[in-house]
Amino acid sequence: MGAPDADPPPEYLSKQIDFVLEIDRLKSVLRRTSLLDRSRRENSAEHSWQIALMAVLLAEHADPPVNINHVVVMLLVHDLVEIDAGDTFIYDEEALATKTARELQAADRIFGLLPQGQGRRLRTLWEEFEAHETPEARFANAIDRLQPLLNNYFTGGETWREPGVTGDRVIARNEVIGLGSPRLWAYAEGLIEDAVRKGFLRPANTNPQ
Amino acid sequence: MGAPDADPPPEYLSKQIDFVLEIDRLKSVLRRTSLLDRSRRENSAEHSWQIALMAVLLAEHADPPVNINHVVVMLLVHDLVEIDAGDTFIYDEEALATKTARELQAADRIFGLLPQGQGRRLRTLWEEFEAHETPEARFANAIDRLQPLLNNYFTGGETWREPGVTGDRVIARNEVIGLGSPRLWAYAEGLIEDAVRKGFLRPANTNPQ
Repeated sequence: MGAPDADPPPEYLSKQIDFVLEIDRLKSVLRRTSLLDRSRRENSAEHSWQIALMAVLLAEHADPPVNINHVVVMLLVHDLVEIDAGDTFIYDEEALATKTARELQAADRIFGLLPQGQGRRLRTLWEEFEAHETPEARFANAIDRLQPLLNNYFTGGETWREPGVTGDRVIARNEVIGLGSPRLWAYAEGLIEDAVRKGFLRPANTNPQ
Repeated sequence: MGAPDADPPPEYLSKQIDFVLEIDRLKSVLRRTSLLDRSRRENSAEHSWQIALMAVLLAEHADPPVNINHVVVMLLVHDLVEIDAGDTFIYDEEALATKTARELQAADRIFGLLPQGQGRRLRTLWEEFEAHETPEARFANAIDRLQPLLNNYFTGGETWREPGVTGDRVIARNEVIGLGSPRLWAYAEGLIEDAVRKGFLRPANTNPQ
């Protein structure tokens, strides 16, 4: 059985393997979100797995409709820059201010490990995700926001106890879910309102305890 | 912006969400493989992420060629049964003997959480992976074997120190990589031989220390 194409030069595969080894480090980037059993915080690698599969499961709720394969690969790469730049908590204004610069530098290094054409293709996907413009990027971002929201709600607001997190800010930070799926946003908004009602998310304009 | 289809019944989305919450547990299923920095063992969720992305990166080495989108979704679901059945170490003959029965029962329960048609589709993908028959299943299995082999080689044989693991058994267990990609198997075989040469994998027919 011959190879379908001419063999690439040996350094081609070795660059791809270097990249595969490098991305192992995403397993050590911790997010704020807890696992549902509250045993520990989740990391960005396992988060990426869960949302890629969630996107497949929930694809029929995308509106406008999306090319789901494109969404899945986008989600598989969307957090790679965190290997250098770390996870940025979406309620941390100070960290958010420097996020873009830190992540651009990370993208240069990390995608730069791959053979050129392939590195550029993956980087373009990450840029598409960050730009929130295409239906695929909007749905991908919707799923990326919905997953921690679920874990927060079903752990009784584990991350929502952090200073400065209030119901109105959770609504404001997450309403982008509606750009990818009005149906999923209606569901998510219901959870946020219920969390405020049940007292594990502070309503607007109140101070942390 | 209206929904593209008529709204599904409310219990439809709620079954999907139940499944999303359930699969969070895959993050707590530990494999034998170490992270490259040796800080801890990896879990099946982050492993699934890494191999899904590896499959995308290495798709051009598949021979015969594959529908890579099909491979990716297969890899995202391939370990879900471990939520109930646990990870089975590929050199543990005793555990391998009961693996199928344990995993079939797990598949009934876990895929059964989803709306019927969707649960059946995902289960069929898992069965395809386990049957090793289609080009997609063979390539998916190749990547699933290559990743721990890389982590073993590049940690100086972390898992290969377990009793009963010898070079010939590592070859025998991993030569299925060649069914998905002769080129990746040639590369992997080179690593295994080098590991024996360097002394962090025992050669054939020797006893563990």
